[in-house]
Amino acid sequence: MPYFDTASAAPLHPVARQALHAALDEGWADPARLYREGRRARLLLDAAREAAAEAVGCRPDELVFTPSGTHAVHSGVAGALAGRRRVGGHLIVSAVEHSSVLHAAELHAAAGGSVTEVPVGRTGAVAPEGYAAALASGTALACLQSANHEVGTVQPVAEVAELCGAAGVPLLVDAAQSLGWGPVEGAWSILTGSAHKWGGPPGVGLLAVRKGVRFSPQGPADERESGRSPGFGNLPAIVAAAASLRAVRAEAEAEAARLRVLVDRIRRRVARLVPDVEVVGDAERRLPHLVTFSCLYVDGETLLHELDRAGYSVSSGSSCTSSTLTPSHVLRAMGVLSEGNVRVSLPAGTTAQEVNGFLELLPGVVAGVREKLGVAEPVAAAEPVAESLEVDALGLRCPQPVIELARVITSVPVGGTVTVLSDDEVARLDIPAWCALRGHAYLGESPRGQGVAYAVRRLR
Amino acid sequence: MPYFDTASAAPLHPVARQALHAALDEGWADPARLYREGRRARLLLDAAREAAAEAVGCRPDELVFTPSGTHAVHSGVAGALAGRRRVGGHLIVSAVEHSSVLHAAELHAAAGGSVTEVPVGRTGAVAPEGYAAALASGTALACLQSANHEVGTVQPVAEVAELCGAAGVPLLVDAAQSLGWGPVEGAWSILTGSAHKWGGPPGVGLLAVRKGVRFSPQGPADERESGRSPGFGNLPAIVAAAASLRAVRAEAEAEAARLRVLVDRIRRRVARLVPDVEVVGDAERRLPHLVTFSCLYVDGETLLHELDRAGYSVSSGSSCTSSTLTPSHVLRAMGVLSEGNVRVSLPAGTTAQEVNGFLELLPGVVAGVREKLGVAEPVAAAEPVAESLEVDALGLRCPQPVIELARVITSVPVGGTVTVLSDDEVARLDIPAWCALRGHAYLGESPRGQGVAYAVRRLR
Repeated sequence: MPYFDTASAAPLHPVARQALHAALDEGWADPARLYREGRRARLLLDAAREAAAEAVGCRPDELVFTPSGTHAVHSGVAGALAGRRRVGGHLIVSAVEHSSVLHAAELHAAAGGSVTEVPVGRTGAVAPEGYAAALASGTALACLQSANHEVGTVQPVAEVAELCGAAGVPLLVDAAQSLGWGPVEGAWSILTGSAHKWGGPPGVGLLAVRKGVRFSPQGPADERESGRSPGFGNLPAIVAAAASLRAVRAEAEAEAARLRVLVDRIRRRVARLVPDVEVVGDAERRLPHLVTFSCLYVDGETLLHELDRAGYSVSSGSSCTSSTLTPSHVLRAMGVLSEGNVRVSLPAGTTAQEVNGFLELLPGVVAGVREKLGVAEPVAAAEPVAESLEVDALGLRCPQPVIELARVITSVPVGGTVTVLSDDEVARLDIPAWCALRGHAYLGESPRGQGVAYAVRRLR
Repeated sequence: MPYFDTASAAPLHPVARQALHAALDEGWADPARLYREGRRARLLLDAAREAAAEAVGCRPDELVFTPSGTHAVHSGVAGALAGRRRVGGHLIVSAVEHSSVLHAAELHAAAGGSVTEVPVGRTGAVAPEGYAAALASGTALACLQSANHEVGTVQPVAEVAELCGAAGVPLLVDAAQSLGWGPVEGAWSILTGSAHKWGGPPGVGLLAVRKGVRFSPQGPADERESGRSPGFGNLPAIVAAAASLRAVRAEAEAEAARLRVLVDRIRRRVARLVPDVEVVGDAERRLPHLVTFSCLYVDGETLLHELDRAGYSVSSGSSCTSSTLTPSHVLRAMGVLSEGNVRVSLPAGTTAQEVNGFLELLPGVVAGVREKLGVAEPVAAAEPVAESLEVDALGLRCPQPVIELARVITSVPVGGTVTVLSDDEVARLDIPAWCALRGHAYLGESPRGQGVAYAVRRLR
């Protein structure tokens, strides 16, 4: 039963399990206490901090442990913004950051700060020039992920860090997705990570703040973790996190090379085996273990359920049909298809057999879902019936508006137009994406009644 | 090697260990995901929430898990204050709350809110009248611990909850020290707890907010845990916390009765075996497992080290001599001696033999520390040499100023005065406490140069 969603949470690494067991016996006491159990806990905590700092590439006294990657991001953003309050209240983030960064930015904006979102291209990468253009005299902080959590694209962190450094602006790098693979290159100022993404236990995040970066922790005072992370530390989990990071790093190069081949195979074969599919993200500058693709005329939740029934656990950035999936702001920012979206992120140790099994299964599953939705022949050959047509898709949810569009496109001649009326938010993303995929021209949108009219010109 | 500091952190309960192991296998995935690993995690999370809610005495949808008791307090105070911002910005706390509550109050005051600290009597208990007097039309929230973490005194929560309820003010109860022993009585509005205090793992706090209490979570948005606790949940630890709370409760009544006898023995025999000792807290209305006493003419850190060398791990609220101990705001608020302070908190399963061993050892250890400090004969018989004397104790640290005072008190006649000049903050607490213990009159303090002059009249 292959689990292909390690970007959400990785199963516990054997080294993490071992270390956790040992630390439950040796590291349950308060490391601030003077008696032997406390001293033993303090030794474990110090050793874990040294190991984690070495893996991150910073000094031990620059690194604190937080209860999660989200806490590390929230504390890091708030502390850096407060530390540079006198400089100004301007924050820069990329449009494809993790929600923890974007939510911290929303809070900053709600409190009167200003936020610039740097856009990304179709592969999901920012251009360093985007950050150069956003940097201003009042910029307190810039944030950029090391690699994207949904599509795997690696960001130009070193270049952006250099631009920020030249402007005297600290750069916070959310390295949650990449830290297991290697240290972050470039002169970052603040770095965050999350242990359960690399096979460590849940309950541990990392927050590293370089010496010299102005940083003013927010929230009630607490003397622990240099005043940067309140609460009694989760020492057994911290020990397990540090030990597993070291273990994962020792295997990283070989495992990355192996998984990169498997992901390349998925990228190639999905595009060949599944009709009307868009494989997204950068094919080269990417995480070794992660690939995302979207299937036209399919609803993500059904696809996910069918794959689960067949034994494969993957995630989806679709928000089709049901409310249980979160719509992907990443796919939207990239301007790529979101319907029928599947993210595959392979855990360490994934075998070629497991990947081949998935590839054998996928085309049939997608075809099955399409058949249920009545799109067995998604683009029916038909005689044109009019120069222009309008499709009323009000009340229909993704992927139905696109299915309706595909059904009628050959009912207008080449050069004719189809207008789709839809009140489904996702249509704004998926209709242009469909046009790009199918080789038609997207003409734009205009408000109409309770919905929006999306106009398409048939080109072939 | 008996560990007598369970009020800091309890060793892991066997049930917690078992549950943790099982949940590491079954509960590592994201409970928000739709595939089988996610659904399994969701089932575990739901079951843990139900078990914890039953133990707390609330509905499952009123309870969320946080990364620590401190996080629960910080989030609880901030959310309640924000939820009632329109009512006013007044916060009531007792003077002996845990530092997490007092630090949250400091932050509130720094942000322009007002805070009333309700004083305590010599046993460490608040009077309900103190809360009645503090409640005002602009009171947004009141906080009261269920029992004190340093001296074990149980607070009149039910009475205070009734007063708050009548005034329409929510009461937040920090139940960290008592939750393993039983549910909190009375109509509390918000309740917080900490798993590692009852034998659960570190990394789990509880925050319960009754339906109908206005509550507005602060910080960046996050959809998890009803929006009240951000970050990826620490599910294995949550499962272990809930399972161990249930297990600890099943044993609580019998274990409380057993430990109560042992603590009574400590209270009685310490007072009898150790000269110049003050056993503090309420002898009756107290936690079953905790007792605190203070020894004149002894520095807490040395005492703690000597007990550690002899195999006993205890904690201290002294701040004598070195900076490694935190001065106790609790002892200060109670107006009792802080020097030579020892807190004994017995873990479940502590045997009578262990307690007897401690009681046999303690008098010799205290005497040894006193001898080192040159107070083998603390109150030397001497002929009065003057009506009044002044002792220059500037630059001397606790317990030296009190030792100097004791050395010269018989050098003035009964009715004569001794004035101690000291720049040690602890003298403000310990000189009056010494007077009360030794039967002399404390006349008050006045500023003098870089220090303070404390005046004492010899009465016997």
